[in-house]
Amino acid sequence: MSNDKNSPVVTIPRRGLMLVLSSPSGAGKSTISRALLERDTDVIMSVSMTTRPMRPGEVDGKDYVFADQKTFDDMVVGGEFLEHATVFENSYGTPKAPVEKLLREGRDVLFDVDWQGTQELAQNAAKDLVSIFILPPSIEELERRLIGRGQDSDEVIQKRMAKATSEMSHWSDYDYIIINEEVDESVARVEEILTAERLKRTRYPGMVDFVRGMGVSQ
Amino acid sequence: MSNDKNSPVVTIPRRGLMLVLSSPSGAGKSTISRALLERDTDVIMSVSMTTRPMRPGEVDGKDYVFADQKTFDDMVVGGEFLEHATVFENSYGTPKAPVEKLLREGRDVLFDVDWQGTQELAQNAAKDLVSIFILPPSIEELERRLIGRGQDSDEVIQKRMAKATSEMSHWSDYDYIIINEEVDESVARVEEILTAERLKRTRYPGMVDFVRGMGVSQ
Repeated sequence: MSNDKNSPVVTIPRRGLMLVLSSPSGAGKSTISRALLERDTDVIMSVSMTTRPMRPGEVDGKDYVFADQKTFDDMVVGGEFLEHATVFENSYGTPKAPVEKLLREGRDVLFDVDWQGTQELAQNAAKDLVSIFILPPSIEELERRLIGRGQDSDEVIQKRMAKATSEMSHWSDYDYIIINEEVDESVARVEEILTAERLKRTRYPGMVDFVRGMGVSQ
Repeated sequence: MSNDKNSPVVTIPRRGLMLVLSSPSGAGKSTISRALLERDTDVIMSVSMTTRPMRPGEVDGKDYVFADQKTFDDMVVGGEFLEHATVFENSYGTPKAPVEKLLREGRDVLFDVDWQGTQELAQNAAKDLVSIFILPPSIEELERRLIGRGQDSDEVIQKRMAKATSEMSHWSDYDYIIINEEVDESVARVEEILTAERLKRTRYPGMVDFVRGMGVSQ
């Protein structure tokens, strides 16, 4: 125990939480996630498992855990995934064990999953999950941002816009909504949500003992 | 709509929330409440109705709304209270109508109620309620603070301590727990909880139209 003014004297072990940020592409999710991971060292990016071949420059265990189909399928049968999906004949999934270990250590885990993955996480880990949907301030602004990237043809941009409105239709499955007008502001909001969610009673299995230690009976 | 960098361009009407701070006496609730009301002008203190006589210096409609027993009882029968109780033959209650008006205007309402009042609010307005329990860092610190007030005899302090541990036994009914080691820090935590809770999807009845306006179908 330290009496340093800047560090709390009472430390009650906390169970970490699972954080999902979702948004249509172009609405700012990647930028916000990157900023969050840089600023808050208690937040760890979840590493998915996949059966797709490793690409040049990728690191096994960092970008993905690469596995063969048999291993993956056995884990599906064993219920060892928090969520999994097959996209273009490749399987992707979030193994339970490493996430559970981080949560028990009081670390928060950030997931990069779509709305279907989020629904599956909500089914399998509702108490640990905090989900945030990031919306663009307007459809025109979303289009401006996609064009501003300068990466895509008109046709591709129109396809992306159609996909974006389809993705946005799932906003109402999420706990929190952030309208991303200014990235720094949005990152601050995600951090405030995290700070608040970390104060939830249900994240402190040790609180029972702490209160009991003060002579309080239940 | 303003394009001022410091004000958001998109404003979606928000439904206010009901905030309860509870703590055993001496754990810091009053100080934290006062600071919150000073700093955050969107937070309004709820005014209770009571049948007890007005005391010198009290202002009707500010400290309490003073009412006769018949008026109070009729309101109980009419279901016009969010919570009510009788203490030493005097009735106290929170009328629904003014709270509902503030919530519809997007103001947050702070309540000064005990654990029973909090339970009643949770039954009658679960979706709007955010409850925070403030704990002392230790039982010794709580006693130090009660003694430090210099108001009470030893006997009174022992009674207060017994009452405090009894009050603390209800900590597990609350959404959030703050251990009050340093008042400024605790006020900041309450503010962060408020900021986060204001971003909850369910507080934006107008979000459906905003998203629909972007061409998103549900």
